[in-house]
Amino acid sequence: MITHPEGFVAAGGHVGIKADGSHDMALVASLEPATVAAVFTTNRAAAPPVSLSRLHVADGRARAVVLNSGCANAGTGAIGQAHALRMAGRVAAALGCAPEEVVICSTGPIGPRLPIESVEAGIDRLAAALSGADTASKDAALGILTTDTFPKSSRFDGDGWSIGAIAKGAAMCRPDMATMLAVITTDAALEPSDADAALRAAVDTTFNSLNIDGCQSTNDTVVLLASGASGVVPEFEAFTAALGEVCESLARQMARDGEETTKVVDVVVEGAADATDAKAIALAITDSDLVRSSFYGGDPNWGRVLQAIGQSQVPADLDALEIRYEGVPVVVAGEPASFDRPGLVARLAGDFLLEVVVGDGAGRARVIAADLTPGYVEFNGAPS
Amino acid sequence: MITHPEGFVAAGGHVGIKADGSHDMALVASLEPATVAAVFTTNRAAAPPVSLSRLHVADGRARAVVLNSGCANAGTGAIGQAHALRMAGRVAAALGCAPEEVVICSTGPIGPRLPIESVEAGIDRLAAALSGADTASKDAALGILTTDTFPKSSRFDGDGWSIGAIAKGAAMCRPDMATMLAVITTDAALEPSDADAALRAAVDTTFNSLNIDGCQSTNDTVVLLASGASGVVPEFEAFTAALGEVCESLARQMARDGEETTKVVDVVVEGAADATDAKAIALAITDSDLVRSSFYGGDPNWGRVLQAIGQSQVPADLDALEIRYEGVPVVVAGEPASFDRPGLVARLAGDFLLEVVVGDGAGRARVIAADLTPGYVEFNGAPS
Repeated sequence: MITHPEGFVAAGGHVGIKADGSHDMALVASLEPATVAAVFTTNRAAAPPVSLSRLHVADGRARAVVLNSGCANAGTGAIGQAHALRMAGRVAAALGCAPEEVVICSTGPIGPRLPIESVEAGIDRLAAALSGADTASKDAALGILTTDTFPKSSRFDGDGWSIGAIAKGAAMCRPDMATMLAVITTDAALEPSDADAALRAAVDTTFNSLNIDGCQSTNDTVVLLASGASGVVPEFEAFTAALGEVCESLARQMARDGEETTKVVDVVVEGAADATDAKAIALAITDSDLVRSSFYGGDPNWGRVLQAIGQSQVPADLDALEIRYEGVPVVVAGEPASFDRPGLVARLAGDFLLEVVVGDGAGRARVIAADLTPGYVEFNGAPS
Repeated sequence: MITHPEGFVAAGGHVGIKADGSHDMALVASLEPATVAAVFTTNRAAAPPVSLSRLHVADGRARAVVLNSGCANAGTGAIGQAHALRMAGRVAAALGCAPEEVVICSTGPIGPRLPIESVEAGIDRLAAALSGADTASKDAALGILTTDTFPKSSRFDGDGWSIGAIAKGAAMCRPDMATMLAVITTDAALEPSDADAALRAAVDTTFNSLNIDGCQSTNDTVVLLASGASGVVPEFEAFTAALGEVCESLARQMARDGEETTKVVDVVVEGAADATDAKAIALAITDSDLVRSSFYGGDPNWGRVLQAIGQSQVPADLDALEIRYEGVPVVVAGEPASFDRPGLVARLAGDFLLEVVVGDGAGRARVIAADLTPGYVEFNGAPS
């Protein structure tokens, strides 16, 4: 609900990118120049819209975010850069702002070029349709979907201020960033440095702790626009916590919607030297095809978890190793524990929690993952 | 054919580890103390037999290798270490050598303990059955299989000397090492330092360039025993090249036998700054579930290849990027090329070659990979 906070309008619709006529563009604008912060993919083959948006958010001010689905505008070279520039320019012309105040996001197949004339005409139509209605946010949420099966949104109501958000993401999801786009709006009054710090903190433990298939995308972007329209300056900690809740909700929706996945698995690693080590282990566990295949089967196959811990190259005290599925210990003090296997397999039929203790350090991390399924491979194996 | 070179005997059979009564142990011995070299997994959760074998090969001399399948003796803690020691001791007693002259290899599920009394009794039986016959090598090759569907062997005949080898490996295959065991025998006369250098060179471009599923195992071991029985000291380059041919053959047999895979894909990366960079890119490409799903479908989905190149974090000149499937360019100078898609998809139905040029550097690497299939996930998803 990006139109929930004061000062924002949105629109979404079909502009001619997707062949099936479904929504393929979204526009989100602040009525006044807003504070902006953003986090982007660290993939070295980042798409032109990412490179351009990095420049456009550098001064901490923005007016609008334009997003399209059906084409990532990635792997498109100089033409792709020109197309991203033209998108920003067209939005700026329609809204009466500078191109540098526009953030550009694209998502979809890598390689194809944007049908730029259709995109530009579509921007004009969406700009004319901008509205603060709930339906406008819904249309915008639909406009950014790719293989998602449902639109994703979240909101938070603070004391005199609020946060709204939409997002997409279903595969090619791994930090940093998990493959995704998200636009978050707030009417809280934020300095750019505070907006940036709050966004990075919230993203670190949510979108950057989401691992659906180990594949990091070229286009990931999370944008936070703060209009200040509420006139309220929230406490930094309270705002960061609220932003974290919104991002957590969106990240879980993405994991739930992972391509052809059947369950969401929370992997918690504790006892590492620090949070960085813990996260590296949690990512290695969730990167493993063998571990994620066992998630699919509901198999408490802790040997594969051990293999992944070792592959991470992070120091771990294997003599102190403890592994629990849904709270049931299967390894204690580095030794296999006896447990009711059929009973545990039955409990792993749906979402579950996998906890791994690798020592007595203070380092802890949580990664949201999904299972690897035959359907995922069929879905992604079919020639396009 | 590990009994092909002069001076070696072998045996294989069922000793009581696998429930189905099939072969689960192999013993390979040199009639005289031999030169030994070995390469092991770099997984930090290396199994007890790996830790012990590292010590036993340190002096460059060995008499025998004992290998079991059906149990990796990994994740077994102090008891696993005791079991590995008992295996070495029993072989030593049977052959009249020191326990430190015995290399120990185990493969199979991680977690369960060895039925050590059955293993020890089995060692006695196999030691009594040691033979230089072809059938002995075949039994040994069968004794190390896990999910493999066929035994793997290779040989090379030099000028007055020869090499023989057996191996296993079908999944949890990624450098360093690819999950596997291999025993290589030769009657060439080699100094330990030359044996070590030749083995490392041969393994680097073969077993350590094999990526079936991105999962690195806890037990990988390649052992080279050189009896010197031929009395011939081969030229180092000739021997290393021959060893490379033997390892290449075994690595390709493993890729062919990848769990539920349908094709072998050679991924060649050229134009990187150096071979290390090229290999890192090739591994990132073959680590990608999305890329390997497209291998399965025979889909020349180069966008996913681009994504993986970027994820590798290795510098690449994307404006110079060239991607070819079976020699057909799909990206030239960083731009999409037009090609006969249905014709190319048809050509990717079987084994194929994927070439990626990332600049004009001299760095080149080749990785042998397999496709990710729904069957792999079904196979590995079933609760044990």
